Amino acid sequence: MLVWWVNMRDRTWRQEEPPPTWQRLGGRGLIARILLDRMDPTAHPLGPGNLLILAPGLLVGHRLSSVDRISFGGKSPLTGGVKESNAGGRTGWALAALGIKALVIQGAPAEPGWWVLHLSADGVRFEPADNLLGLEAQATADRLLRRYGKHVAIALIGPAGERLWPTAGVVNIDQDGVASRLAARGGLGAVMGSKGLKAIVIDPSGGKPPAIQDPATFRQARRTYTQALVAHPQTQTYKDYGTAAMTLFCNQLGGLPTRNFSAGRFEGAEALSGEALRQLLLSRPGAMPDHACMAGCAIRCSNVVTDAQGRFVVSPLEYETIAMMGANLGIDDLDAVARLNAVANELGMDTIETGVTLGVAAEAGLWTFGDVPGAFRMMEALRKGDLVGRLLGQGAVVTGRVLGVRRVPAAKGQAMPAYDPRAIKGTGVTYATSPQGADHTAGNSIRAKVDHRDPMVQADLSRKLQIHMAAYDTLGVCMFAAYGFARVPETIPMFLRARYGWDVPDDIFFRLGKETLRLERAFNRAAGFTPAHDRLPEWMREEPLPPTQAVFDVPESELDRVFAEIDRAEPFV
Amino acid sequence: MLVWWVNMRDRTWRQEEPPPTWQRLGGRGLIARILLDRMDPTAHPLGPGNLLILAPGLLVGHRLSSVDRISFGGKSPLTGGVKESNAGGRTGWALAALGIKALVIQGAPAEPGWWVLHLSADGVRFEPADNLLGLEAQATADRLLRRYGKHVAIALIGPAGERLWPTAGVVNIDQDGVASRLAARGGLGAVMGSKGLKAIVIDPSGGKPPAIQDPATFRQARRTYTQALVAHPQTQTYKDYGTAAMTLFCNQLGGLPTRNFSAGRFEGAEALSGEALRQLLLSRPGAMPDHACMAGCAIRCSNVVTDAQGRFVVSPLEYETIAMMGANLGIDDLDAVARLNAVANELGMDTIETGVTLGVAAEAGLWTFGDVPGAFRMMEALRKGDLVGRLLGQGAVVTGRVLGVRRVPAAKGQAMPAYDPRAIKGTGVTYATSPQGADHTAGNSIRAKVDHRDPMVQADLSRKLQIHMAAYDTLGVCMFAAYGFARVPETIPMFLRARYGWDVPDDIFFRLGKETLRLERAFNRAAGFTPAHDRLPEWMREEPLPPTQAVFDVPESELDRVFAEIDRAEPFV
Repeated sequence: MLVWWVNMRDRTWRQEEPPPTWQRLGGRGLIARILLDRMDPTAHPLGPGNLLILAPGLLVGHRLSSVDRISFGGKSPLTGGVKESNAGGRTGWALAALGIKALVIQGAPAEPGWWVLHLSADGVRFEPADNLLGLEAQATADRLLRRYGKHVAIALIGPAGERLWPTAGVVNIDQDGVASRLAARGGLGAVMGSKGLKAIVIDPSGGKPPAIQDPATFRQARRTYTQALVAHPQTQTYKDYGTAAMTLFCNQLGGLPTRNFSAGRFEGAEALSGEALRQLLLSRPGAMPDHACMAGCAIRCSNVVTDAQGRFVVSPLEYETIAMMGANLGIDDLDAVARLNAVANELGMDTIETGVTLGVAAEAGLWTFGDVPGAFRMMEALRKGDLVGRLLGQGAVVTGRVLGVRRVPAAKGQAMPAYDPRAIKGTGVTYATSPQGADHTAGNSIRAKVDHRDPMVQADLSRKLQIHMAAYDTLGVCMFAAYGFARVPETIPMFLRARYGWDVPDDIFFRLGKETLRLERAFNRAAGFTPAHDRLPEWMREEPLPPTQAVFDVPESELDRVFAEIDRAEPFV
Repeated sequence: MLVWWVNMRDRTWRQEEPPPTWQRLGGRGLIARILLDRMDPTAHPLGPGNLLILAPGLLVGHRLSSVDRISFGGKSPLTGGVKESNAGGRTGWALAALGIKALVIQGAPAEPGWWVLHLSADGVRFEPADNLLGLEAQATADRLLRRYGKHVAIALIGPAGERLWPTAGVVNIDQDGVASRLAARGGLGAVMGSKGLKAIVIDPSGGKPPAIQDPATFRQARRTYTQALVAHPQTQTYKDYGTAAMTLFCNQLGGLPTRNFSAGRFEGAEALSGEALRQLLLSRPGAMPDHACMAGCAIRCSNVVTDAQGRFVVSPLEYETIAMMGANLGIDDLDAVARLNAVANELGMDTIETGVTLGVAAEAGLWTFGDVPGAFRMMEALRKGDLVGRLLGQGAVVTGRVLGVRRVPAAKGQAMPAYDPRAIKGTGVTYATSPQGADHTAGNSIRAKVDHRDPMVQADLSRKLQIHMAAYDTLGVCMFAAYGFARVPETIPMFLRARYGWDVPDDIFFRLGKETLRLERAFNRAAGFTPAHDRLPEWMREEPLPPTQAVFDVPESELDRVFAEIDRAEPFV
């Protein structure tokens, strides 16, 4: 597989045989390696020196259940550090089918202009995108699907990305052509916008699935893994309730962010529960309580939300959005949350960052918690891009600063997702120490069997989870497939040996995770990060969280311990 | 002399004999030492963990010409690093008269509330300030002078400081009772606001000038120094033209910031020149082309601006303001600049940060360069504190981010003063590497006899100047008195030996400067700064500055060389 380099300055492209140190990495790990090797870590995230990287994970391309994810990466305009954000949909598989190990986009147009990048077995074409400018996500996808055929994969930006807002994600279409699969976090949509790219279209039709060196072993591993995944009770939970099963669990622990993290339990949580969502979807014409975002997924955690008339509203409606645009905004109405989610998707915005930002804005008095029309006024400001919209479009930290709000839940500049770190301290250690900034997908401890409020047991737990997640993100594995792999961990080296013919050790999974984190930490150090950045905001150490009255009291020495060994480790290859 | 500690949490105070490592420091150096010893460098700058420090320099209290300056310090809400900002006026002398080596204000009110701190020979009183809330600077000063007597010194904040804006300075009254002497830079007015302090009143009447161990030697040093200062031709230039003599000099070098740093020469520079200002002031009833901000100053660089009817407008009108609110905004009208300056003073705002912010706002289209009523609309937004005002009140970096402007001239989050670093690269090295952020008073190379555009001769020059300035700021010496001391450098150890009876080496001046910088760098490292922060913005390395077409091309290795030796130095005491 080759690395495709695209230079937006002069609209040229070339292919590169990956050097040896890149070959055994994919997805998130490869992104960190490329950023460290090929860009100045102090470059401006929205300047020509940043790289936008698309890298399928190492196991992408075979329609293994929940294993065709695409990682987007670059230097984040939100955190100023390394960023990887991954998504389902078609993009990962299509890139692998073209034999692309990574697509690296460098430079920026010398003259102002917008482009569609078209990748196929014939190479790269640059097509003017001026007629797509200002279009929202689905309209953009629909036009491109009409122009290039229903079989292509598309990664695109909405108005938020065009405006270079660090709340902007990259929107991928799912297997139904719905523009809904966001590589949402850290502002990579703005990085794409800074490169003058409205969309990347990938036509896999002339390509073929990646070669497998040992098909028999691969088939055996696939069988073992799929059986383990399907048999796991959590898989059924995700199918029935999606991620929304988390609402009541997190509420019970007192960690459901409520009204800008001023409480950890929401009186309207029942109305936002997985059961409530399932009943709603079962009652709605055309809705689907379970749905696959990628071809071949056996988990089907996604869903399709329709209104009472059966008109499409959004797909999927996930826990993070339910919490951040529901409880965190004092809203207990799933239909309202779904419509807020739909607006964010159309603008191409991260619903976590947007939800937290709206919470900060409510605390500052720009609108009132629980006032659904008020929340839509904020979304309308974002749509219009007026001064309020431009402010909110910068995310929670800048909004809090301008509006004078001290209670801004963020780490390394990125807003916190739907687990208050005072009540679930292992996740809090991840928020503080992850090279990605506050990110539950970097290592969420909520399902671990520990006392979530004991400050002294979280560092080792967070490290373990962060290593796991970094490894899965490097393989292209959805975090929910982890339940399957955890039961049959031997299938991971089997897959890698069978596909690539590599001689990998049995503990390759952990090595991949550690190496990925080591590289990300090295990039961040060069970009200007220090232990002082591996911290949560001061107010979270002081302000008790009702009703548990917990504070974030994990000692700094524990936080500094998380990566001490990994920082000193030898390189992987 | 003692350190007075005030705790705003419970409104208590105490006195402390300074430990040995503090005794031989004053002003800026002592501030760095106290911050490093007594606060968590990662504390939030506007939280209770920050310290607000007032420290007279080591030679303050004797009415030596231009040597009674007061240093304010704390962790900056603008840069996130160490901050010292000094001013003339009465404050330094009055504190020294009470035997106060440093006033350290810690904590924040447990209940919301505003206070006046009253210091006298009887100690500290806390008086409610609610009736002063919202008052602008001069009105606040006038009320306090009426209440406490015309002889007191006052340091206060305007509305900007009350709103915790990082553009807010601390306003000191001058010898005429005019609220005009700002410790302007880095947002220390917001730190004062965060402590619930509207004003600090210092009544020196029961105090006495600091003791002098060897009066004869002190008198001899004073005579030698004063003669050298008065005889220096630069002193006469400052008296005649004030700092505005710089306008044409900087314009000639192509370094006069024009229309948000898009050019280095301004077609209206003549109208902003020192000569034009002098002629204007000579023509105005009640105006003064020369004026002393502190009792005993022989330089008299200050001035008093009146309007055609002789009504007071502002005092002083300085070059930095003329450049940043004049040329940088495309305005060539000294009266307009004086009135803009007056509004900023009344709000208690840094005119440099404000001028740069308005330039960024003009580039973003909020108003038009050169449109004087438009500039006043921006100032009115700041006065009202509407959304535009709250945005601009955050300073240039946040304003640029929200408005999508890439050309933001700032270093470590602080806006650049009136010397474009592409044309005057030694000052650029100072902007990049100073622990204070972009600050010309930290080491301005414009008068050095070098090729200002040669990138390879600036690192050593900047280091030398930064050491000098850190030493002067530690002594309490105005930067314009440096011309005098440079001719008779032996007077500095003479003064220190005579006043304190210390056995100081002949090179004490350089030791003080280096130690101050070493301490400040250590604080910043602990606060999260790295070499990646000792840089200028990327666009300044790429965008040529008309008409010289210079870019900032000082190599990073040169920047990293500036403090390499100082960082490794042994502590001072």
